Amino acid sequence: MGEAATVNGVRKATPPEEEHPRKAFGWAARDASGRFSPFVFSRRNNGDEDVTIKILYCGMCHSDLHVARNEWARTAYPVVPGHEIVGMVTQVGGSVQKFKVGDRVGVGCMVNSCRSGSCHGCQQGLENHCPGLVFTYNSVNVDGTMTYGGYSDMIVVDQHFVIRFPENMPSDSGAPLLCAGITVYAPMKYHGLDQPGKHLGVVGLGGLGHVAVRFGKALGMKVTVISSSPGKEKEATERLGADDFLVSSDPGRMQAAMGTMDGIIDTVSAVHDVTPLMFLLKTRGKMIMAGAPEKPLQLDAFSLIIGEKSIAGTCIGGVKETQEMIDFAAEHNITADIELVSMDRVNEAMERLSKGDVRYRFVIDIGNTLTAA
Amino acid sequence: MGEAATVNGVRKATPPEEEHPRKAFGWAARDASGRFSPFVFSRRNNGDEDVTIKILYCGMCHSDLHVARNEWARTAYPVVPGHEIVGMVTQVGGSVQKFKVGDRVGVGCMVNSCRSGSCHGCQQGLENHCPGLVFTYNSVNVDGTMTYGGYSDMIVVDQHFVIRFPENMPSDSGAPLLCAGITVYAPMKYHGLDQPGKHLGVVGLGGLGHVAVRFGKALGMKVTVISSSPGKEKEATERLGADDFLVSSDPGRMQAAMGTMDGIIDTVSAVHDVTPLMFLLKTRGKMIMAGAPEKPLQLDAFSLIIGEKSIAGTCIGGVKETQEMIDFAAEHNITADIELVSMDRVNEAMERLSKGDVRYRFVIDIGNTLTAA
Repeated sequence: MGEAATVNGVRKATPPEEEHPRKAFGWAARDASGRFSPFVFSRRNNGDEDVTIKILYCGMCHSDLHVARNEWARTAYPVVPGHEIVGMVTQVGGSVQKFKVGDRVGVGCMVNSCRSGSCHGCQQGLENHCPGLVFTYNSVNVDGTMTYGGYSDMIVVDQHFVIRFPENMPSDSGAPLLCAGITVYAPMKYHGLDQPGKHLGVVGLGGLGHVAVRFGKALGMKVTVISSSPGKEKEATERLGADDFLVSSDPGRMQAAMGTMDGIIDTVSAVHDVTPLMFLLKTRGKMIMAGAPEKPLQLDAFSLIIGEKSIAGTCIGGVKETQEMIDFAAEHNITADIELVSMDRVNEAMERLSKGDVRYRFVIDIGNTLTAA
Repeated sequence: MGEAATVNGVRKATPPEEEHPRKAFGWAARDASGRFSPFVFSRRNNGDEDVTIKILYCGMCHSDLHVARNEWARTAYPVVPGHEIVGMVTQVGGSVQKFKVGDRVGVGCMVNSCRSGSCHGCQQGLENHCPGLVFTYNSVNVDGTMTYGGYSDMIVVDQHFVIRFPENMPSDSGAPLLCAGITVYAPMKYHGLDQPGKHLGVVGLGGLGHVAVRFGKALGMKVTVISSSPGKEKEATERLGADDFLVSSDPGRMQAAMGTMDGIIDTVSAVHDVTPLMFLLKTRGKMIMAGAPEKPLQLDAFSLIIGEKSIAGTCIGGVKETQEMIDFAAEHNITADIELVSMDRVNEAMERLSKGDVRYRFVIDIGNTLTAA
């Protein structure tokens, strides 16, 4: 029943197509080429606590690319990615109070967790810290079957993991907030980088970075973008509203900005030198790593010790905080800048994503372009 | 007047021997060989806010070795190290209220700071964060002269930077607390690793590590020592009172301890792999770097991201907190384990220190063995 076994370093799911009673359809990558093609599979029946969602839009996260290509070496093929899902409720279980048919909802990176009374994470509303966390795709669910994500026509999810979309939050450009948004919002809250007047650095102006700028400004902070691309200055300051822009290769500007930032969110997942960024921090300043470079970071210990700085990892956020983030974004008209693509152009979009050629997030128009094979 | 100039990468002080009116005597390193020899120099007159201290004991910190050998490439020779100073007050200025002649006092790593109303560090009692911080030795003081440390017969210090030694705190084995003690105590307090029942890991059982174990136990924590030397287990658990001991090269024990620690203080200044230590931390656990390896740390970003862990530097502590630490140590009978050496054996002691051959701190018996040349 969908148990993942490792074959030559690649996890293989046993044929899952008919393990559940409901027929579903999506696009899957079948091997490490990461090439997508149509895929018929199945979803479980709608349980008492479940919500069935007709998927309308799904954002394309960089993680989708990593997993499709097995770059983290733990992909179970066939894999249907997608954890920035927005859709319409089409069925609710008998115990579902939070949602009704016709509601517009989102599903982010998680679809289950242990939810036991002894789990520190689940008890605190930080399901993302639960050791039994089930990711939206490429994860083994509690019933032993593999999870499949939002590059598909519908999904069945426990109501606890479903996010209500406020009326004024668009379905397409709101979708990326479910991963990119919470990934930058949660650490800003946790590390106290949400206070008016504080100075936030944002490294990298991509899917995560551009929404980090918007959240930072909405929270009343001074926001400086740090980028290796001088060409992004106008975009950062004029269109996204950043207060300042630093080119990381400009020693003069980097020197002048030393010791000025309360915190920095580093969204770059390519290998890069973190030490010069540490010098931008004030005493006890915090560097948040939201990207995951494939090679180890190199870090001068003195850059931590002088000024007692810290560097912290961050990993999405809990369900409650994701709802809070979506509500905050709706209130402040924060969305992602997206390029809408049709389902049959997902391979081309992935190729462009791998080159960083998108401003700033591809969103697949599932509702209008996913047609049964 | 003692301005440091850089000559071939080595800072050279102009001859300082007679720049101040009071004659002083100590042992100095003259070049990167780090070899010590007797040195006649001078101290300033006792000002209104000053306390003159006859030095009785001075601990030998690993920093003394780094600076004597110019391993941090910013030594101004001749250098008189020593920032774990304990002595007797012999003179006080007219405005000194805190101390009187005959008091037993200590001086740690700092002898001055800007103390201005606009300095965030100074205003918060965190002089260690002041950009104008003057270190006890190898630092340019506000009058432009170089500072000389405790490998000497006497020192003149502004009362603000003088620590009162409680009656039951020994002068010899209490001396190392002024650097080694505050370096581990301050981050325990700042990062919330001071709460009964929490689990503290201490990496390395040297000058810092062995007092970290004692502070951790006195604060009611569970303390586990992590060391590369299996031979230190009995010492750690039986004599120092640690609850547990892990050999870092034992994968079974390391695996079993995964996710169990609230925080870890890493005191090892030799280059070592931090990533396996990160796995010992609980979710949102904190790794404190108190040692400063000469080569950059290599750090897997996933070890930060999974479980939202952080790694933070620490740099001694403020004056107020140093006094609090000494008072706490006195109350709980915490001292360092020392080996007392005479001034004329400082070179031999340095050689042994460079090999880690001391349990756990050399203290120079200045009062009884420093005799004028």
